[in-house]
Amino acid sequence: MKILAVGSIAFDTIKTPFVSGKNVLGGSLTYFSLAASHFAKIYPVGVVGRDFKPKHFKLYRKHNINSQGLTRAAGKTFSWSGQYDYDFNNRKTVYTHLNVFANFDPVLPTAYKSIPYLFLGNMDPQLQLNICRQTANPRLIVADTMNYWIERKRKELLRTLRLIDILIINDAETRQLAKEHNLYKAARKIVSLMKPTRRGGSPTLIIKRGEYGLLMFTRKNWFSLPAFILEDVFDPTGAGDAFAGGFVGFLSRQKHLNEKSFRKATMYGTIMASFCVEQLGPKKLITLKRRQIQERFKKFKKLFALI
Amino acid sequence: MKILAVGSIAFDTIKTPFVSGKNVLGGSLTYFSLAASHFAKIYPVGVVGRDFKPKHFKLYRKHNINSQGLTRAAGKTFSWSGQYDYDFNNRKTVYTHLNVFANFDPVLPTAYKSIPYLFLGNMDPQLQLNICRQTANPRLIVADTMNYWIERKRKELLRTLRLIDILIINDAETRQLAKEHNLYKAARKIVSLMKPTRRGGSPTLIIKRGEYGLLMFTRKNWFSLPAFILEDVFDPTGAGDAFAGGFVGFLSRQKHLNEKSFRKATMYGTIMASFCVEQLGPKKLITLKRRQIQERFKKFKKLFALI
Repeated sequence: MKILAVGSIAFDTIKTPFVSGKNVLGGSLTYFSLAASHFAKIYPVGVVGRDFKPKHFKLYRKHNINSQGLTRAAGKTFSWSGQYDYDFNNRKTVYTHLNVFANFDPVLPTAYKSIPYLFLGNMDPQLQLNICRQTANPRLIVADTMNYWIERKRKELLRTLRLIDILIINDAETRQLAKEHNLYKAARKIVSLMKPTRRGGSPTLIIKRGEYGLLMFTRKNWFSLPAFILEDVFDPTGAGDAFAGGFVGFLSRQKHLNEKSFRKATMYGTIMASFCVEQLGPKKLITLKRRQIQERFKKFKKLFALI
Repeated sequence: MKILAVGSIAFDTIKTPFVSGKNVLGGSLTYFSLAASHFAKIYPVGVVGRDFKPKHFKLYRKHNINSQGLTRAAGKTFSWSGQYDYDFNNRKTVYTHLNVFANFDPVLPTAYKSIPYLFLGNMDPQLQLNICRQTANPRLIVADTMNYWIERKRKELLRTLRLIDILIINDAETRQLAKEHNLYKAARKIVSLMKPTRRGGSPTLIIKRGEYGLLMFTRKNWFSLPAFILEDVFDPTGAGDAFAGGFVGFLSRQKHLNEKSFRKATMYGTIMASFCVEQLGPKKLITLKRRQIQERFKKFKKLFALI
């Protein structure tokens, strides 16, 4: 139950119609690690600037998150600012300052190389490749990406695809990566670009659809899960990474990695994402108790059960 | 297993990136009746013009659809023309000629008044009220509506809501009717505007979300079902009414009308909608065999089963 995770750490300035905050601790690595920490011990690899304070390191350590792989570099921590209107699907990026993340090219601590579960947050596919090559044949590799890399680093991304077991992206990215409008066909195409996994199973694509839930495609099957609907959503920032955290976190505790455990893992991912959006930034992921996760899981399972 | 259905019969001119056709038999009553006819005997009430041919009546009769309630009036049949682009969610109405449907105010044939299942297609809520008042306390009333009536006949629509058991509309209509952006809150509000049903159960709202599936709300619970994803979608016209046809059709065969049977009915509705969109207009609903429905139901159940 150890998970290696690589991604960004950021200070975010967020504005939604309901809440707002400045320099909120964020980044894919933060959301992923906090969500996954409810299931496993997390070994994040990332870079922060001089403005990253002892209290931030302390927060990670308090949550089962090892800080050995976090490098503190000269300069400022990556910072991002975004605004949402009432339709949370419309996000406006106010600014993106990569800062120390611009030169990120991590060397894994030796002890990290044999960790069996690997999550690659959204970043340059070339970095994702470099990281994969440093690991000792992990049991499972899950990766995220985005339109920026699909446009600019397609060749490297296609190479990454052949090294990972599960890709988690959204609808638009699925269509763009496959160059195919029909989502079903696009998904099938992406799965065909991936390689059969080390465990011998089918490569898997998970398509995130926000409030509409998700689709999961293997070479043979597809599966669909609705979102957990909430009365109040305050801030969608980090929901995708919280999903990945719950998903990989649950899988790291499973004896068998197969379609059955993947399906159940999407439920835990969905639940972690649903908690994430209930408060500003990663606030809710920080205060969350395991009991609450189990309660919501039971409720979720019952809510869409057909009996 | 008799269903009374009231709605429009139209000749549609449809253009999608994949198929197109002129004067295709359509209208809510046609799609509903053809879909529901795979489950029950249908008693449609509607009006057609002089251009409605014996072959059209014959088509209905061939499909378990009684034609006694269809009035042939002086003038032309309602006609509609729509175009879709690759994103089927973007529909452009080219024209709507109400023709004989403009003066529609049906008097139910006496034998129809005691039919236990009633579907009210999208039409003036005042007509929906008039029809309800002619019936002898049906076991179940299901209705559809649209933005046009929400804007122009809100008062009458709210009155209709208090007479029906189940309302089937889309997301945007839900938000508009409730005057509330949050879909969860909007759904709760609409259900609270409806009256506890004759069977003593909660009133129910079904929110259609096209390719994203549906949500079902009662006073206490919610439920979510994904769509049945297809490799090829040719024409989304009529999918909502085909859904209603499968939904009410399945329910007309059930001993118990409760949340459990409603959930299962949404699966049959979803499957009938999935067949509907596979060919131009109602073509597929016409040629469909019961065996194909059962096969797809099994496949659907398995596909999103969590095991």
